[in-house]
Amino acid sequence: MIGGGAGAFIGSVHRHAIMMDGYSELVCGAFSRDADNNQQTSAQFGINKERVYDSWQSLIEGESTLPEKQRMQVLVIVTPNHMHVPIAQKAIEHGFHVFCEKPLAISLDEAELLAQRLKNTPVLFGLAHTYLGYPMVWQAQHLVASGAIGSVRKIIVEYPQGWLSANEEQSNKQAAWRTDPAQSGGSGCMGDIGTHAFGMAEFVTQHQISDICAELNIHIDGRRLDDDGAALFKTKQGATGTLIASQVCAGVENGLSIRVYGDKGGIEWQQMQPDTLIHRRTDAPFQVYRAGQGNVGLCAEALSRCRVPAGHPEGYLEAMANLYSMFAKAVTHHQDHPVINSNVDGVPSIYSGLRGMAFIQTMLESAASDKKWTAFVASSADTQDLKNEVIL
Amino acid sequence: MIGGGAGAFIGSVHRHAIMMDGYSELVCGAFSRDADNNQQTSAQFGINKERVYDSWQSLIEGESTLPEKQRMQVLVIVTPNHMHVPIAQKAIEHGFHVFCEKPLAISLDEAELLAQRLKNTPVLFGLAHTYLGYPMVWQAQHLVASGAIGSVRKIIVEYPQGWLSANEEQSNKQAAWRTDPAQSGGSGCMGDIGTHAFGMAEFVTQHQISDICAELNIHIDGRRLDDDGAALFKTKQGATGTLIASQVCAGVENGLSIRVYGDKGGIEWQQMQPDTLIHRRTDAPFQVYRAGQGNVGLCAEALSRCRVPAGHPEGYLEAMANLYSMFAKAVTHHQDHPVINSNVDGVPSIYSGLRGMAFIQTMLESAASDKKWTAFVASSADTQDLKNEVIL
Amino acid sequence: MIGGGAGAFIGSVHRHAIMMDGYSELVCGAFSRDADNNQQTSAQFGINKERVYDSWQSLIEGESTLPEKQRMQVLVIVTPNHMHVPIAQKAIEHGFHVFCEKPLAISLDEAELLAQRLKNTPVLFGLAHTYLGYPMVWQAQHLVASGAIGSVRKIIVEYPQGWLSANEEQSNKQAAWRTDPAQSGGSGCMGDIGTHAFGMAEFVTQHQISDICAELNIHIDGRRLDDDGAALFKTKQGATGTLIASQVCAGVENGLSIRVYGDKGGIEWQQMQPDTLIHRRTDAPFQVYRAGQGNVGLCAEALSRCRVPAGHPEGYLEAMANLYSMFAKAVTHHQDHPVINSNVDGVPSIYSGLRGMAFIQTMLESAASDKKWTAFVASSADTQDLKNEVIL
Amino acid sequence: MIGGGAGAFIGSVHRHAIMMDGYSELVCGAFSRDADNNQQTSAQFGINKERVYDSWQSLIEGESTLPEKQRMQVLVIVTPNHMHVPIAQKAIEHGFHVFCEKPLAISLDEAELLAQRLKNTPVLFGLAHTYLGYPMVWQAQHLVASGAIGSVRKIIVEYPQGWLSANEEQSNKQAAWRTDPAQSGGSGCMGDIGTHAFGMAEFVTQHQISDICAELNIHIDGRRLDDDGAALFKTKQGATGTLIASQVCAGVENGLSIRVYGDKGGIEWQQMQPDTLIHRRTDAPFQVYRAGQGNVGLCAEALSRCRVPAGHPEGYLEAMANLYSMFAKAVTHHQDHPVINSNVDGVPSIYSGLRGMAFIQTMLESAASDKKWTAFVASSADTQDLKNEVIL
Repeated sequence: MIGGGAGAFIGSVHRHAIMMDGYSELVCGAFSRDADNNQQTSAQFGINKERVYDSWQSLIEGESTLPEKQRMQVLVIVTPNHMHVPIAQKAIEHGFHVFCEKPLAISLDEAELLAQRLKNTPVLFGLAHTYLGYPMVWQAQHLVASGAIGSVRKIIVEYPQGWLSANEEQSNKQAAWRTDPAQSGGSGCMGDIGTHAFGMAEFVTQHQISDICAELNIHIDGRRLDDDGAALFKTKQGATGTLIASQVCAGVENGLSIRVYGDKGGIEWQQMQPDTLIHRRTDAPFQVYRAGQGNVGLCAEALSRCRVPAGHPEGYLEAMANLYSMFAKAVTHHQDHPVINSNVDGVPSIYSGLRGMAFIQTMLESAASDKKWTAFVASSADTQDLKNEVIL
Repeated sequence: MIGGGAGAFIGSVHRHAIMMDGYSELVCGAFSRDADNNQQTSAQFGINKERVYDSWQSLIEGESTLPEKQRMQVLVIVTPNHMHVPIAQKAIEHGFHVFCEKPLAISLDEAELLAQRLKNTPVLFGLAHTYLGYPMVWQAQHLVASGAIGSVRKIIVEYPQGWLSANEEQSNKQAAWRTDPAQSGGSGCMGDIGTHAFGMAEFVTQHQISDICAELNIHIDGRRLDDDGAALFKTKQGATGTLIASQVCAGVENGLSIRVYGDKGGIEWQQMQPDTLIHRRTDAPFQVYRAGQGNVGLCAEALSRCRVPAGHPEGYLEAMANLYSMFAKAVTHHQDHPVINSNVDGVPSIYSGLRGMAFIQTMLESAASDKKWTAFVASSADTQDLKNEVIL
Repeated sequence: MIGGGAGAFIGSVHRHAIMMDGYSELVCGAFSRDADNNQQTSAQFGINKERVYDSWQSLIEGESTLPEKQRMQVLVIVTPNHMHVPIAQKAIEHGFHVFCEKPLAISLDEAELLAQRLKNTPVLFGLAHTYLGYPMVWQAQHLVASGAIGSVRKIIVEYPQGWLSANEEQSNKQAAWRTDPAQSGGSGCMGDIGTHAFGMAEFVTQHQISDICAELNIHIDGRRLDDDGAALFKTKQGATGTLIASQVCAGVENGLSIRVYGDKGGIEWQQMQPDTLIHRRTDAPFQVYRAGQGNVGLCAEALSRCRVPAGHPEGYLEAMANLYSMFAKAVTHHQDHPVINSNVDGVPSIYSGLRGMAFIQTMLESAASDKKWTAFVASSADTQDLKNEVIL
Repeated sequence: MIGGGAGAFIGSVHRHAIMMDGYSELVCGAFSRDADNNQQTSAQFGINKERVYDSWQSLIEGESTLPEKQRMQVLVIVTPNHMHVPIAQKAIEHGFHVFCEKPLAISLDEAELLAQRLKNTPVLFGLAHTYLGYPMVWQAQHLVASGAIGSVRKIIVEYPQGWLSANEEQSNKQAAWRTDPAQSGGSGCMGDIGTHAFGMAEFVTQHQISDICAELNIHIDGRRLDDDGAALFKTKQGATGTLIASQVCAGVENGLSIRVYGDKGGIEWQQMQPDTLIHRRTDAPFQVYRAGQGNVGLCAEALSRCRVPAGHPEGYLEAMANLYSMFAKAVTHHQDHPVINSNVDGVPSIYSGLRGMAFIQTMLESAASDKKWTAFVASSADTQDLKNEVIL
């Protein structure tokens, strides 16, 4: 793991998720450029001192010198955004699989470099779109894909938070880097959480957003990146929608939600009640799927992401752990069956990363433009044949 | 009452609301151009046969010939939109107070004519923005106005419904006129329910929307008016927001909701749980106001709109009845204290009607435009001094 | 109307309910022994001064002297409990139909006298079990009766309130008589709200409670009647259950709820969200019926009790109005088709009144007893053939 | 770990919880008497083959022979109930700390033997009352203890489930042993989940239940243990309450909930929404505490049990992991500071186990009795001075 020292939010989430299912183990780290923090964090997780590194470069290089059976298998990148690509590049160069925080990069161009680098490389790559690890998000996708709500017309996705309502960046390390263009990229709120909303919309509907009409706002004096915004959008497949993301909805916790309506019904899901999926029907009472319920029509993808029977709530850490477990299984399988294809079944891929970066860039362009609709920025995600595997 | 024969939705709502509190009585009507329907409807409500009229003209004229103490006092207009203004004009001419369905007219120009006509006339005018009769909507306004959430930054208002998901206009009279430009005006969904969302946003925040960036959609082959749409908006006072209105969210009932966030907190209200108002705070757990609760900080405007103690749900009919009761009291007071000013405390006025029509026109202009932001269309509502009373 | 002067809670509820649907009209009253209150209340509702009476006796006698077409048709009794039977007796004697608040009487014996008096009398009698006017309570009964949840095993009914948590009786007129044995009867909380819970359980399941094991409590120094209690119970049909009623659940509003489970599923309903009925299924996701929804399987009894489409909340006053409208229709029908049978379709009857009084007495006996289970007190409700009509 | 082979529900929960926080590691096991199952389960968790044992006896003996630094530190017992005490006894004998599933034993007598055995032994003991690991349960206790709701009057605790609605024991291994008196003890439902409800009530209020009036039921032909029941109860401190536990509420998932009311307010918590705690107040709107929220009044005990900020749901596995993490810390501390006292701060102890067994026995006695109230069965929990530590 690179990044995620004491005081970081997401590093700790990753560690719980890594450990929870017993498929992975944290074996080495460069958690912080602060040596004390680095030592403390690694001590807390019982990491062998020889494998605590003082920089990401030395970690990758150091691990490379270890015998194959002893070195790390997957590099987890939980640094601020601007380091994602440089670190991932070097990891790939040394043949380590990569599991990386989102957004993928600080620009689409930088993301494309990484995508290019991944091609023809026998390295697995995963992106931490945690929310796509929730079982009921898969059930939502399943209901849409199976035609339960008919042809999709309308997508309403939102991600309100309130934690940046005041000038947190003065005192909160998290807030500081997330509002700093050099570390975060061209967008604050849209890069941080707008990408989650965007990815959720595309994942559940399997539509691609094709046009965006956006506005971005900054609410705190001196803040340099958007902390709020919204967009109207259209999809290539003919639906329309609205995307809202904000970090200044004071008092709101973490309100990611999605609603999708077709000509026969709709589905509604809220991250803060992740075990619950509403299925609206035009000719019957609405019904409510619940995670963990056997025998009521949950798809295999949803059920396989549940650890306990219905009514025993699973949450955010379990959603992340679902990504890790699938990644871990793929790594194990890859040892014996290496292929050239960075994608892992069930784990957001470089494709998601590219789409996310194209989303950010389109939002920035649209917000800066006088004209109403902006075509979604082209990326290699549009043409990439993602399933092409070359058996090694 | 003009309009509202058997088969109409809103006429029946008005009748329950008129009767519920005992301040008003239904005394005459021209409920339908269909003579049978007209007779049946009037019989159902025990209306004296002599006061059942076969047209709106004959009703206004007929009532005018009655002795002052016997004639109707208020004309209730519940016809399709295109008849609102002609009928209201004639009613004003004959000195009858008017309580009219929304939207006010089929165009802003037509609405302006009515506004002009009302000036210097000792006639009271009310608009049936039912949702502004809910007590917790007043509590929401009170919390915003009292500074409980600080300076307003963000407004999210939406009104999803699903009832026009299929081609209802073939079989449903309600749907037929509401999707007919001749009867409904230039907009379907935005005129019908977008105006509610718009009015709610302006009422609760007391902001005025100044700029709009909108999209309107039609989802059914052959449908002539929008059945869905959304807008980004800005207010004169510096907030931004999103407005969604749709009649094709299949399976959704009547989901009007509003969320407003300031720098200190937020308020959230949903029409389908009208007795509940969430107040988010940045430094304390969120708290939940409930209609009818004494002694917990409800404002006078909220409490006076409750009939029963907390926990005994009041609903939509009571919200409408609140408008009627206030209108009835104003009519009674006006008898002894006539003034030239059509406004009634607590009842949406010609101002709301004009703003609503300007909203519809702005939405249509913005949706048809290539440029991103469209300035809110000017109307006399912008300049009208609404409180100027001339004592007669 | 007898009782229900200014300051009374339930009188006002009845008046709104009487007026809402236009089937009934308030024509005379003896609202209060306080002459000022009586005058004010009647003035507020525009009652002819000649029909404002200074006592219940003079009302019944005075109305009897009016010509048949002019006199009141139904006497509404909203006094404290101890006056229900004396007033009802005299009303029956004079041939007036009676709509009476619950509990029916201050003792089962007194209730039996009234039941006896009703026999062979061409007078209609209704009991104001308001909650049985809710559409979704009928849908619940329908689902149980239709076998949707299989054979009923388990009934959980509760009615928590918090309004008597402190010594309200010192300052609150409502609280004063409700905690006074002379006016209220032998039980406070169980008489006032326990009877609602009991009636709800028997109505929804169509089971009869056969055995009770109860405890009653008093929480305020000097209070003379129970303000809280609970019971285990069994039904003649083989189910078991729990009944909780309390007026000292501080902060709770009006939490009547019922849950019923059979071998195939369950139903759950809460009065504070009356438009919603949960239907749990063992082999499918749970589904949620909503009042006013056409085309999704609501029974005729539920749909006929809805005034507006789904998503336009109806509440407590509408539930009561449903009782009044059905009673009004029965009165009208009875004019032309008089029979000897006091029951009105869809309105709680003398049977409910007797069962309720037997419930109170059984609760008191069980609470005072050392032995665990107490057989439900016998009453003529057990044997009465309630549907026997003699055509006059 | 002893027990918890493939197909067991709770063993898997323990394993996730053990691993999640990185304080513990699963090092050896006797997961199943079925050798294949045992091998598979241990392989799945990468357990060294030499430390996979074919019986619980050989595990304890085998580990004892390992050098002190290499042997297991804590024995986790997740077998059916009848094996808890025998295994725990032997573990204590060999000086291993014990973390044991509940209920503690198959009888109070057996539990007392274990309690006796623990005395004067430098062994830590924890009981898996998972639900007491939830942060908001600690906040509930904190609010009650701090007087926020005043003096406790009323406790309503319930634990409905539906999973034994049909004859599951024929096909489901879980159901088979849980309904078998030889493996489960004298009670089915009350032992399995009634003890959770009981423990929750005593934990949150810090009252002790003193009297019980109970009924137990069996709903399936041939089933030998109660699958449903309810009790009225009183506490030593003067509150009354109701406890419901059922496994035949068809369609219900896992509905543990508690409501406590005092003279100033109340608290309400539901396990299926574990991050939410309602605080009712008599003089202010009710407020809602949410797990993970800093700066809004959460107590230290609640906050220390949260891993992520508010709005990132934590669930059942995290609740269990909280117990394990505290136990692990205590074990580490105990290495350097050994004492004679089996209790671990924040982890349910032998005291909870004894109270739970006394609860089961009292329920059985009361249900079998003709007399109404049964005094809570005495146990050494009543007198034990639980905090007495002897420093070694």
